[in-house]
Amino acid sequence: MIEDSLHEECGVFGVFNHPQAAHLTYLGLYALQHRGQESAGIAVSDRSSIIVRKGMGLVNQVFKHQKSLDDLNGDIAIGHNRYSTTGSSNIENAQPILINCRGGQIAGAHNGNLTNSESLRNWMVDDGSIFMSKTDTEVIMHLIARSKRENIDSMILDALSGLSGAYSLLFLTPDALYGARDPHGVRPLLIGKVDGSYFISSETCAFDLVGAEMIREIEPGEMVKITKEGISSFKIPVFAPSVQRAHCIFEFIYFSRPDSYVFGTNVDKIRRELGRQLAREHPADADIVIGVPDSATTAALGFSEESQIRFDIGLIRNHYIGRTFIHPAQSGRDFGVRIKFNPVKGVLKGKKIVIVDDSIVRGTTMRKIIRLIKTAEPKEIHLRISSPPIICPCFLGIDMPTKNELIGAEKSVEEIRQYLEVDSLGYLSNEGLLGTVPVPDDFCAACFNGKYPVIPSTDQQLAHA
Amino acid sequence: MIEDSLHEECGVFGVFNHPQAAHLTYLGLYALQHRGQESAGIAVSDRSSIIVRKGMGLVNQVFKHQKSLDDLNGDIAIGHNRYSTTGSSNIENAQPILINCRGGQIAGAHNGNLTNSESLRNWMVDDGSIFMSKTDTEVIMHLIARSKRENIDSMILDALSGLSGAYSLLFLTPDALYGARDPHGVRPLLIGKVDGSYFISSETCAFDLVGAEMIREIEPGEMVKITKEGISSFKIPVFAPSVQRAHCIFEFIYFSRPDSYVFGTNVDKIRRELGRQLAREHPADADIVIGVPDSATTAALGFSEESQIRFDIGLIRNHYIGRTFIHPAQSGRDFGVRIKFNPVKGVLKGKKIVIVDDSIVRGTTMRKIIRLIKTAEPKEIHLRISSPPIICPCFLGIDMPTKNELIGAEKSVEEIRQYLEVDSLGYLSNEGLLGTVPVPDDFCAACFNGKYPVIPSTDQQLAHA
Amino acid sequence: MIEDSLHEECGVFGVFNHPQAAHLTYLGLYALQHRGQESAGIAVSDRSSIIVRKGMGLVNQVFKHQKSLDDLNGDIAIGHNRYSTTGSSNIENAQPILINCRGGQIAGAHNGNLTNSESLRNWMVDDGSIFMSKTDTEVIMHLIARSKRENIDSMILDALSGLSGAYSLLFLTPDALYGARDPHGVRPLLIGKVDGSYFISSETCAFDLVGAEMIREIEPGEMVKITKEGISSFKIPVFAPSVQRAHCIFEFIYFSRPDSYVFGTNVDKIRRELGRQLAREHPADADIVIGVPDSATTAALGFSEESQIRFDIGLIRNHYIGRTFIHPAQSGRDFGVRIKFNPVKGVLKGKKIVIVDDSIVRGTTMRKIIRLIKTAEPKEIHLRISSPPIICPCFLGIDMPTKNELIGAEKSVEEIRQYLEVDSLGYLSNEGLLGTVPVPDDFCAACFNGKYPVIPSTDQQLAHA
Amino acid sequence: MIEDSLHEECGVFGVFNHPQAAHLTYLGLYALQHRGQESAGIAVSDRSSIIVRKGMGLVNQVFKHQKSLDDLNGDIAIGHNRYSTTGSSNIENAQPILINCRGGQIAGAHNGNLTNSESLRNWMVDDGSIFMSKTDTEVIMHLIARSKRENIDSMILDALSGLSGAYSLLFLTPDALYGARDPHGVRPLLIGKVDGSYFISSETCAFDLVGAEMIREIEPGEMVKITKEGISSFKIPVFAPSVQRAHCIFEFIYFSRPDSYVFGTNVDKIRRELGRQLAREHPADADIVIGVPDSATTAALGFSEESQIRFDIGLIRNHYIGRTFIHPAQSGRDFGVRIKFNPVKGVLKGKKIVIVDDSIVRGTTMRKIIRLIKTAEPKEIHLRISSPPIICPCFLGIDMPTKNELIGAEKSVEEIRQYLEVDSLGYLSNEGLLGTVPVPDDFCAACFNGKYPVIPSTDQQLAHA
Repeated sequence: MIEDSLHEECGVFGVFNHPQAAHLTYLGLYALQHRGQESAGIAVSDRSSIIVRKGMGLVNQVFKHQKSLDDLNGDIAIGHNRYSTTGSSNIENAQPILINCRGGQIAGAHNGNLTNSESLRNWMVDDGSIFMSKTDTEVIMHLIARSKRENIDSMILDALSGLSGAYSLLFLTPDALYGARDPHGVRPLLIGKVDGSYFISSETCAFDLVGAEMIREIEPGEMVKITKEGISSFKIPVFAPSVQRAHCIFEFIYFSRPDSYVFGTNVDKIRRELGRQLAREHPADADIVIGVPDSATTAALGFSEESQIRFDIGLIRNHYIGRTFIHPAQSGRDFGVRIKFNPVKGVLKGKKIVIVDDSIVRGTTMRKIIRLIKTAEPKEIHLRISSPPIICPCFLGIDMPTKNELIGAEKSVEEIRQYLEVDSLGYLSNEGLLGTVPVPDDFCAACFNGKYPVIPSTDQQLAHA
Repeated sequence: MIEDSLHEECGVFGVFNHPQAAHLTYLGLYALQHRGQESAGIAVSDRSSIIVRKGMGLVNQVFKHQKSLDDLNGDIAIGHNRYSTTGSSNIENAQPILINCRGGQIAGAHNGNLTNSESLRNWMVDDGSIFMSKTDTEVIMHLIARSKRENIDSMILDALSGLSGAYSLLFLTPDALYGARDPHGVRPLLIGKVDGSYFISSETCAFDLVGAEMIREIEPGEMVKITKEGISSFKIPVFAPSVQRAHCIFEFIYFSRPDSYVFGTNVDKIRRELGRQLAREHPADADIVIGVPDSATTAALGFSEESQIRFDIGLIRNHYIGRTFIHPAQSGRDFGVRIKFNPVKGVLKGKKIVIVDDSIVRGTTMRKIIRLIKTAEPKEIHLRISSPPIICPCFLGIDMPTKNELIGAEKSVEEIRQYLEVDSLGYLSNEGLLGTVPVPDDFCAACFNGKYPVIPSTDQQLAHA
Repeated sequence: MIEDSLHEECGVFGVFNHPQAAHLTYLGLYALQHRGQESAGIAVSDRSSIIVRKGMGLVNQVFKHQKSLDDLNGDIAIGHNRYSTTGSSNIENAQPILINCRGGQIAGAHNGNLTNSESLRNWMVDDGSIFMSKTDTEVIMHLIARSKRENIDSMILDALSGLSGAYSLLFLTPDALYGARDPHGVRPLLIGKVDGSYFISSETCAFDLVGAEMIREIEPGEMVKITKEGISSFKIPVFAPSVQRAHCIFEFIYFSRPDSYVFGTNVDKIRRELGRQLAREHPADADIVIGVPDSATTAALGFSEESQIRFDIGLIRNHYIGRTFIHPAQSGRDFGVRIKFNPVKGVLKGKKIVIVDDSIVRGTTMRKIIRLIKTAEPKEIHLRISSPPIICPCFLGIDMPTKNELIGAEKSVEEIRQYLEVDSLGYLSNEGLLGTVPVPDDFCAACFNGKYPVIPSTDQQLAHA
Repeated sequence: MIEDSLHEECGVFGVFNHPQAAHLTYLGLYALQHRGQESAGIAVSDRSSIIVRKGMGLVNQVFKHQKSLDDLNGDIAIGHNRYSTTGSSNIENAQPILINCRGGQIAGAHNGNLTNSESLRNWMVDDGSIFMSKTDTEVIMHLIARSKRENIDSMILDALSGLSGAYSLLFLTPDALYGARDPHGVRPLLIGKVDGSYFISSETCAFDLVGAEMIREIEPGEMVKITKEGISSFKIPVFAPSVQRAHCIFEFIYFSRPDSYVFGTNVDKIRRELGRQLAREHPADADIVIGVPDSATTAALGFSEESQIRFDIGLIRNHYIGRTFIHPAQSGRDFGVRIKFNPVKGVLKGKKIVIVDDSIVRGTTMRKIIRLIKTAEPKEIHLRISSPPIICPCFLGIDMPTKNELIGAEKSVEEIRQYLEVDSLGYLSNEGLLGTVPVPDDFCAACFNGKYPVIPSTDQQLAHA
């Protein structure tokens, strides 16, 4: 339930060879809506030229009328849901970004966060480039346009080789769909297929909606190009002899939908195991286990399974709330939490309860939730967090507050317990966390342990670029 | 998960003596949004006159801009969420309905269904009345206007005494808030309070949001009037020596939010017991229990508790879907169900599962859900329904299909099982259902057992009116 | 240029037997847009039932999307543009008003102003009726519903016979179109035809747009009914042995479009003659004649013709201004006039000019226009008004300020001249005004001469009703 | 009345040092609305950074809510109305265009048409630039960004020196407002002032609305920079020893508002003289002179003055029509003309009439207008055009059809007369046209005489750039 403080940046979805490419992209973006609610956009190619439509809000707010999709003719498309990491909340920053350049028309959509975008941008600005947005994507589009290579494939690879950090990228040219993933594999990106149509998506839950089967993940450091000849694979050139994998472990903890498959496994399976491990590490003497809905429910189920303490629904979440909600002036303290959740008195009253949440960032929201739960008069509250304390900011795409705002970096667990006013507090250990994932060394858990993946320095990058 | 087939008609919320009456009504309607999503409206009095604003859609779509609420000055207000039972989906049928009549300005908002509205309407039309909507509410407003009594209290009581069927009504005059509930007490209606402000609501979950405490239910056959002098209570005149109570048992099964208190008890408590009783009546040899979200989750938890089969989340519900969702032409069969739910393969694959839902109406949606769940390849599917087969239509406000569309009326349980293609199917028994509620005789379960409450005949009503 | 002060109430348009009845009504309303810009609505019958759609704003704002018209299936329709006379600016007061009553479904649209609507309303309210709007139309619909006559024709006639004042009315039943005009003939109402389709309109300019030919005017005191059998004519029953005609002379001065034919003649012809007569009565020694656009242009042309002083365009009118125009806070005095008009310096500078306008109500707007014109530095300004001073309020439908706000009632011509700061001022005489129209006795010029047409008293009406 | 065929491209307006800069820009754009109705935008600086808002439609459609202007804080602003010449009708092409570059933030707005934008664009694309719109403005912004000069003034001048063709440009930096006009002075651009605030506008009619006085025109080949120190003037570097002036004579014929002052004189004065000269060259034996409203009215007045044939209003123009107008399917031929104009029968019937229009492009619209006028049964129609036949396309910013679509290039005057079915047709002569303007050699009349101004070749430009 970290949504008030941590934000994943984006969801991307692409379609190749489907007569209703824009419509299916709309569905894919809808399934990926949890990855970004600020803006949505679709670019579509009819094999001769590309057009793009984008706007602020949810995908079904941006594409409100049947006509808004019907006008997007073509059989190849890419789409993007955005939550701002870099760049403020303006239409200028909505994606896909469509450009004309030496390589012709190209549209790009990005999920990730570059660590050298500022230096790349500065260098290109000094060299006479203009920028109209604050997105990494525009930086990448400039790099493509500036490449001296002979064809568009090489131009894109050339651009990608200059990037440092996290990226799961889709590109659309008039006759091809590209997907590319940084050598660390920070964010997921997968290929799906049904009949003769191909799809690329941030998560597999979008394949399910359009009726496609996942074929495979795009490999870290791989670029795929889908044309009528099928899929071709390219290795993104890198200087370092080897690059450390660094899958973002937060995809398992919070970002991805539990019904998705990412990083080689089912999210649900890992998230549930986090709950089980949490129960082993921090057992509690309690009557019921509840999760903070919706994100922590799976971990709570795991906690219940392991502890044999009964799982229950003790907080109802109101799903009708939207961007246009009006906050009355006299709505009082903790209103933001009350409008989202209502505790179920019949479930909580007089009970010793375990509450499972997935993470604590600032602690302020959690404190309000605890206060809200107390209005239902439970006997005891035992808070369990299915990840370790967050002690370091993220440089690879999660929008976090600065270190001194991170309660996990500033206070001891006991101090946090006192601040939250709960009877006991247990965080999952770092070992417990990494023990749940298939290949621990392939994951980045820097926000919990400070061990950032080795990212080639900006200077190296610049020298190359 | 009967939402595609059964619809409760409305939610009502009223405020007395709060400087932000319209804002609080907006919050109350938001908490009652599950009772009606077709239209929303608020009428407000500044103690001299009443104005009303209404529109199609959710309450936060109708009141989009701060200004739309700020313009509604006054400290008494009533609001209404509508799902159409009678009347088609037009703005003309939105409520509250504000009229000028001999009693001055009055606004009315209605949750329920009259059994004699057609005859009342016909009689008044013959007598020269005009109707601009198809709502029961307009019929009631006409009765008030036609009353020859000397003051507005008596005029309203006079009108109510002519009504037959179900009603939970709010009225707003320039200086008072009224709440009235039919003698059967079909729908809930409760009074809340905080500081000097009073509230009347269809369910207590709305009190929680505005920070009010429930005081009591409005009694069946009672009208309350709230003025600056406080609450006064009136008995609605009826002819019959005694009137049978007939609380709608579907409020417990499906309509009310589990965190609400209605009909003298917590919804969550009853709904969970329905699940427990279902487990007793129809045990299953299974690995996990899942509920069809969100409405059947509580019963599934009860089933799990009693059966000691582990509860799990096997269907993810997508909550971003809204009125404006565009259905692509080639979206294929079962798309409507796929857009709402995604099965979690990791949870379901290879498992023997119990699926709990609250009711089956036509059976078509359930069949699609089963088909969808099968894509996750469970080993066995045991469907359990936390209410008996629906065999009779409702005359008191639930929008049901005709009898020959009710699968429970047309087929045996075994035939239904075959139609749904599940390994076993168990419905809660009528005895089991009524055994869970406090005073079984006070409830109407006519849709399950055909025992309709004795409603005074239309002729009697007309004679009176 | 009296638009800031005087307002005609409405335009009405009806279609019988055209497969695109709603579309043609839209066009008709568009041609009549000058008669009302506050709200617009269309009711249409597909021969079995009637639906209505209405909203605030111009007709092309209310019907924005093709779909909004396409949904209005049927071959009979009536439409209405409203400028409020009675009733404030709310959607409740938009027309047509569609009711269900003993006569079935009927929609009504009204241009005019009843003099006994208040007493009729009070009487019906006392008798148990409810009112949802503040319009005369609702009063009329009630009267129809209350009639004890055996068929809908008689019911409508019965209702009309109880009305006093001005009305040009359209009614729509599932299979017929009705038009009715009060016995005084205050407002125009005409019948047109093309191929097998019939039309009824407030002005003929709407016939031109839909390609129809005017057949004739509906006579004062006549109701016509158009069905597949053709046109039938009914005399509206009145008590008085004879009723004085009272065509509103302001239709010629200002309201009707110059390209329309009303009251038996072309508006342009009369309006131009008003200018000629004005030149005869108040000649001026000047270089050019200009009109305040657009309404006074025709009279200015007449003045020029008669005086042989050259007509010129000295004020440009900006037509892009709409309801949504934002007035900057620091926009300064006279901004409302400046945003609408810009004086042409090249035309006005150093010249002796005659400015013709059609009327002066409060004088405040005229004063601002004069001030604006002076910024172009003319040598002399001679103001000529193509109607006499307004000295009495109107009771038949023109929304005028009260008598003490009428500058013509409060000040002498010389005082007005001083207030407006012009070199000379001449109003058309009452004799001059009435001398231009075909049958002076058939016209009401009460606002200029205080001679109100004899309207049967309210008491008579009530006795009848 | 060439609006269906010829389009000016844009209007620009800038404000320096006014606390409500965005509001005044809104007013300025409103006064310049006739120069472009496709999109509108405003960029504003609060002296530290610049933000921009733009959208499709009229300026009061793009800025609908008070808040949309209030949010644009700052005291320097530029605005733009667009009608597309280059670039299709997309939001991507709306202006101002705001970029970040080596010179910091700069916003630009352009009225004109470059003759070397395609080659500049191609060269920059080859050199690695990306383009997001199809506008000349983006080309210019790239040139600024690519300049190696040391400060922003020099960077802009450097960019301008590479441009060929027509431009009246505004630039906004965080602390300065720039205006620049090509050496030919093709489009107008003027400076105004009131109190301490400065304004730059395409036409003076916008100064009138904001209450400013015109100071002077920006000279052909001049760039002005307005800062808190006042106005500084720069000469735009050009290679040619001298550059021919080439004011677009169509500004006098059609584009500019008659109440504006451009190219050293009043538009009204010239336009009227065009009508007088037309009367001298092509007298007619007629009863009345009418103009096609609104653009040809002034010329018609001149014709009337000279010929002593009475001016009259024979066509009424409907001004309520807007972008959202729905064209009914069965609306028939010539509907587009009928919805805009209605002939006044009373004026035209039986008369010999002179119709004055300002130009004929394809002839199709004029043919429909003539046909429409004939429905009013005039006796004779004598068409007079206040400019010569258009025989050559424009390369400097007027959106014209290709040569073979120009009726004046393809047919003789007699053939055109027959095509239009008028009794006589007279075009103004080229000598007559140029005789009306102050310094004929300073004007471009290439569309009439094929004498294009000498524009430095693209090669020269590229060599320089």
